Amino acid sequence: MDALVLRRGESSPTLVDRPRPEPAPGEALLRILRVGVDGTDHEVLTGAHGAFPAGDDEMVLGHEAVGVVADPNGTDWATGDVVAPTVRRPPPGGTNDFFERGEPDMAPTDATVECGIDGADGFMAEYVAVPGEFLVEVPPELAAVGFLVEPLSVAEKALDHAFAARSAFDWDPEAALVLGNGSLGLLTIAILDEFDRLYCLGRRDRPDPSIDLVEALGATYVDSRETPVPDIPTVHEPMDLVYEATGYAPHALQSVRALAPNGVAALLGVPEDHREAVDVGEWHREVVLGNRAVVGSVNAGPEHFRTAVDSLAELDESFLEQFVTTVAPVDDFEAAFATDEDVVKTAVEFGSL
Amino acid sequence: MDALVLRRGESSPTLVDRPRPEPAPGEALLRILRVGVDGTDHEVLTGAHGAFPAGDDEMVLGHEAVGVVADPNGTDWATGDVVAPTVRRPPPGGTNDFFERGEPDMAPTDATVECGIDGADGFMAEYVAVPGEFLVEVPPELAAVGFLVEPLSVAEKALDHAFAARSAFDWDPEAALVLGNGSLGLLTIAILDEFDRLYCLGRRDRPDPSIDLVEALGATYVDSRETPVPDIPTVHEPMDLVYEATGYAPHALQSVRALAPNGVAALLGVPEDHREAVDVGEWHREVVLGNRAVVGSVNAGPEHFRTAVDSLAELDESFLEQFVTTVAPVDDFEAAFATDEDVVKTAVEFGSL
Repeated sequence: MDALVLRRGESSPTLVDRPRPEPAPGEALLRILRVGVDGTDHEVLTGAHGAFPAGDDEMVLGHEAVGVVADPNGTDWATGDVVAPTVRRPPPGGTNDFFERGEPDMAPTDATVECGIDGADGFMAEYVAVPGEFLVEVPPELAAVGFLVEPLSVAEKALDHAFAARSAFDWDPEAALVLGNGSLGLLTIAILDEFDRLYCLGRRDRPDPSIDLVEALGATYVDSRETPVPDIPTVHEPMDLVYEATGYAPHALQSVRALAPNGVAALLGVPEDHREAVDVGEWHREVVLGNRAVVGSVNAGPEHFRTAVDSLAELDESFLEQFVTTVAPVDDFEAAFATDEDVVKTAVEFGSL
Repeated sequence: MDALVLRRGESSPTLVDRPRPEPAPGEALLRILRVGVDGTDHEVLTGAHGAFPAGDDEMVLGHEAVGVVADPNGTDWATGDVVAPTVRRPPPGGTNDFFERGEPDMAPTDATVECGIDGADGFMAEYVAVPGEFLVEVPPELAAVGFLVEPLSVAEKALDHAFAARSAFDWDPEAALVLGNGSLGLLTIAILDEFDRLYCLGRRDRPDPSIDLVEALGATYVDSRETPVPDIPTVHEPMDLVYEATGYAPHALQSVRALAPNGVAALLGVPEDHREAVDVGEWHREVVLGNRAVVGSVNAGPEHFRTAVDSLAELDESFLEQFVTTVAPVDDFEAAFATDEDVVKTAVEFGSL
């Protein structure tokens, strides 16, 4: 069968032929429909993030998948069920408390592997075998966009944790700022409908399809070259929520400068090392005297995947049509890894319903 | 009546004679028993924190008070009730949403004044007039230590917010580190009884009464000169909770370095400006990939005061005897502002039950 892999020493995907997997007991065989591509995939390709499976010199790419059950193999699933696989699996040494209590997203990095990212094969193949417990049901009518369940789940988890961090008092947020007009930032804006005013920070020139999407979603586009994060409260307004989805290192501390009192910054990006001089006293004081919070969030749990399916069902069809700019058939997979400015969200198609 | 004030241009308290206040409608007249002294009072004296009441050149000091109702003046209180006043009041311009919904602790700094700290007279006087809604009942048997309700309330709020920030998943914390063996740090260790292992960071040489108290509470004393915060996970263990109660600026970011995955740092100290070079990328990454959180907390709401009364009732008497090293009568008030190494917690006594 076709599979897209990264080989050690290379920095772009290769289409290879692999044997169709035999599902082990507890695993269902999935026929993959589409697999999305995101910033993490590009970081995996450049080696900035992730690792090959132990002992392997290549890894099947892709962690944003939707597929259809081809062989339930004794699991609770039925042939034809449309499903999205979650990303984390127990490490080679065996399972642990985090997986046993259904919170793999809370496992420390050494207590998990991540399919297609860190230590385990991903989903860019015609067939994959997935333990039944790591599949989430997707309504068949969402099959074409089901690869968005995974990135949405990441946003749902970050928002879940950010709101939890403000649950000890009466928090009534009105303004949110998303840092980054990449695909995760745009998806997040699309689901932040409880906020009255939305802002999205980017550094692109018009005309740009992601800026068009920001504005179609009713959000204000903020060009970081004109208005750096710390200036946003004076130029626009202080934010109740800042959502960092770029991985630009200075944003972690700058986010607090954009927060209103009692606000929360949710950090999702994974930056490189970056040393700079910071007034840590002022930062500390703003966090304390303004009752502010910073919450880091990675991956997502099964509940967040289920919430993401609900959120996906509520997204506007015209948004989704503009948002998914490329669905490349597997023999034209390079198109899904393009990073041109007219690209918003891409996926590789391995099959159809 | 006697009152202890700070005069503009000075940096130590002065005992003055002031007229006994006439309670306005809605205010009860309180006869003050004892008022504690803490780090914030010393910051007020040096001018590092706080401000005089608008238009005044002196401010009555003290925000950690216990008193007895001398004249209910039509409020719901009864003569003889032992009470602790909360610290925040609406600003001169009038009340606002935060006060109206009973969360003055969540008011931004420009939407509140703080008695004895920032813009309003405090409680170091024989009598004070306090709106009935800003009083919390203290059992008469706790009258002698009721001035500890306020600092305990500050700890209760910070812990409330820290636990809320971890409420989106199954958090089972075991190890906590308190930065600072001052009076707030020690009180916090005394109420952190749900943790299996407690650590307290300080920079004092033995013999020292605060180190004795740390150890009497079953906690491990960590000398920051031997083991700086970032080394604590390797020398001791990674911490589920780090509680910053020193106001030492670099701690805000270092706290995260001492956290276990899924841990939370509660920041309470109020540092001066302090510029230093920091690897913000590494910090950002540790927050994200470890699902870590940082929560700032200032002041406390009426619920935290009530919880603090309960916590105070459960504190060991022998702890309290060792902890309160000085109760100075008002004509020897200087003793309560001493900062000798054998001082742990001090108070000024204005009267008795």
